[in-house]
Amino acid sequence: MKNKPSRLFAGVDLGGTTISTVLVNESGIVLSRTKCLTESILGVDAVVERIVHSVKEVCRLHNINDKNLDGIGIGSPGPLSTKTGIVIDAPNLNGWVNVPLRDKVQASFTSKVYLDNDANAAAFGEYWKGAGQGFQNIIVITLGTGVGGGLIFDGKLLRGPDDNAGELGHMPVFPEGPACNCGGKGCLELYASATGLVNRAKDSLKAGASSKVMDLCQGDINKITSKMLHEACLLGDSFAIEVFRETGYYIGITAAGLVNLLNPELIILFGGVIGAGDFLFNPVREEIDRRAYPISAQRVKLVPAILGNDAGAIGAAGIAYQEFFPDEFAL
Amino acid sequence: MKNKPSRLFAGVDLGGTTISTVLVNESGIVLSRTKCLTESILGVDAVVERIVHSVKEVCRLHNINDKNLDGIGIGSPGPLSTKTGIVIDAPNLNGWVNVPLRDKVQASFTSKVYLDNDANAAAFGEYWKGAGQGFQNIIVITLGTGVGGGLIFDGKLLRGPDDNAGELGHMPVFPEGPACNCGGKGCLELYASATGLVNRAKDSLKAGASSKVMDLCQGDINKITSKMLHEACLLGDSFAIEVFRETGYYIGITAAGLVNLLNPELIILFGGVIGAGDFLFNPVREEIDRRAYPISAQRVKLVPAILGNDAGAIGAAGIAYQEFFPDEFAL
Repeated sequence: MKNKPSRLFAGVDLGGTTISTVLVNESGIVLSRTKCLTESILGVDAVVERIVHSVKEVCRLHNINDKNLDGIGIGSPGPLSTKTGIVIDAPNLNGWVNVPLRDKVQASFTSKVYLDNDANAAAFGEYWKGAGQGFQNIIVITLGTGVGGGLIFDGKLLRGPDDNAGELGHMPVFPEGPACNCGGKGCLELYASATGLVNRAKDSLKAGASSKVMDLCQGDINKITSKMLHEACLLGDSFAIEVFRETGYYIGITAAGLVNLLNPELIILFGGVIGAGDFLFNPVREEIDRRAYPISAQRVKLVPAILGNDAGAIGAAGIAYQEFFPDEFAL
Repeated sequence: MKNKPSRLFAGVDLGGTTISTVLVNESGIVLSRTKCLTESILGVDAVVERIVHSVKEVCRLHNINDKNLDGIGIGSPGPLSTKTGIVIDAPNLNGWVNVPLRDKVQASFTSKVYLDNDANAAAFGEYWKGAGQGFQNIIVITLGTGVGGGLIFDGKLLRGPDDNAGELGHMPVFPEGPACNCGGKGCLELYASATGLVNRAKDSLKAGASSKVMDLCQGDINKITSKMLHEACLLGDSFAIEVFRETGYYIGITAAGLVNLLNPELIILFGGVIGAGDFLFNPVREEIDRRAYPISAQRVKLVPAILGNDAGAIGAAGIAYQEFFPDEFAL
């Protein structure tokens, strides 16, 4: 392996509540980091200013001039266009419709800026410096308020012509199931998001099921979180264990289909819910092994993400690296 | 666009009953073709000999020496390895387990040989010279005795590390549905293969449904084919129309999920069943539009394959071209 020239990239993870920014070198090592509130209520330009400031801040913290950056990557909610750098519509960001985010940030820097969506950035972060290191064919399934994902094949993000690929939360699990906000029916998100699994638990408890989680929430069903359900699992609570088993079953159905479709090396589960560990992972694994072709099922590893909240910012920096220096990135 | 140098490739489509071979130039124009029976009952080496002979035959028909070939591509049933050139297991070919097909054919030629699976070859044929011309992100869904497929993204086959990607017939549609031969449950193949749709029709007719297809099969339900059902549709038979509508609904559920997952430009339906035309395509389209994200649903075109039985052999030749001259192929 040849040595890579030394490089510096800033990566920005633009979220609905927080802007997280890192400075990384060519190896993806974080050299400095900063965080601030997004407060999109203040308007697009205020958010742009915060992004610009955060990039200058990570440079300042490492005592470099931002002119020495080899690239800036931004992961933003979408849909968006990586070609035009425009955020088409971001419901989590107040009033963001057709915002030319890339060019607005670019105006403050000589280094080139690249815009991609947040799910791709997180997936790329895990590929570059997280659970996906050493693999080239990866599916990342993000289990949060919603369910999303990112696909990396032959070491590159599979984006599709509209940068809209990876919406695996809206693949149908039960095609004649309940209506989903997306317009579809029975989508994975309804069953496997943190929201979905907590709602399922609440409904059963309201219908009279008994569980130690009732102590953890101090009797207020509406306060139940996926973390409380995980704690109840650790106490041996069969109700909570069943909630995660079911969730794993649903994820496993979709995962098995993806294994047959894409023959990935690795499936990475990402998001707060993965704290449930084996209570969630075992049923996913069982369903893959039960349903997918043996060659593909034996190939695929199922692992938790390891970068946590850093994945998006590190990944945004990594995407900028691969986009601006593709041959060097692949070394 | 630069001019491509002139090139000659042989493409072989090895099927359970027939070996189809073409000679094509750098533009994918068929210069000669030949066909013979496979008769795998005669043993592996007899089949290899027929493949070798068919390649020499297409050269002879075009008055060239096989030394002038720039490459030979073979599409074979699988699973197989494109890296080792070994057919791992081909149930349609009598006794084919771990057959080093590529090297066996290579022994008779100075031109390089490339082996890929038949579904990939057919998909690549449609991409290169069929319904997919001009598109770079394509899903091919093959509806035959079984249901298979091929994925082309950024102009390249997505194969996966075991060359096992594309098995979209074994993505679950109804995950708690009937058992599938693959070990899964409720797989698309059960609902959307020619076999599946004909069986569904037979079951309903045996249970007393009435249809003009009963005249077409001369009262013998067991003789019903998908073609007869299509003919009945053209006669306005509501039973047959409903059989294709249901089939399109099932395909559309999976297709909508794939549209959200992969944001393809094009979905090509392939195989005898597509003769049913709008009776099949309209419900698939409706289901995509109903379920998939608008950006991705509006992007994707749904079209029939156009190369028919030639797709596999032309595609095998095209794959060899892309593998052996990647820069030139992309011109």
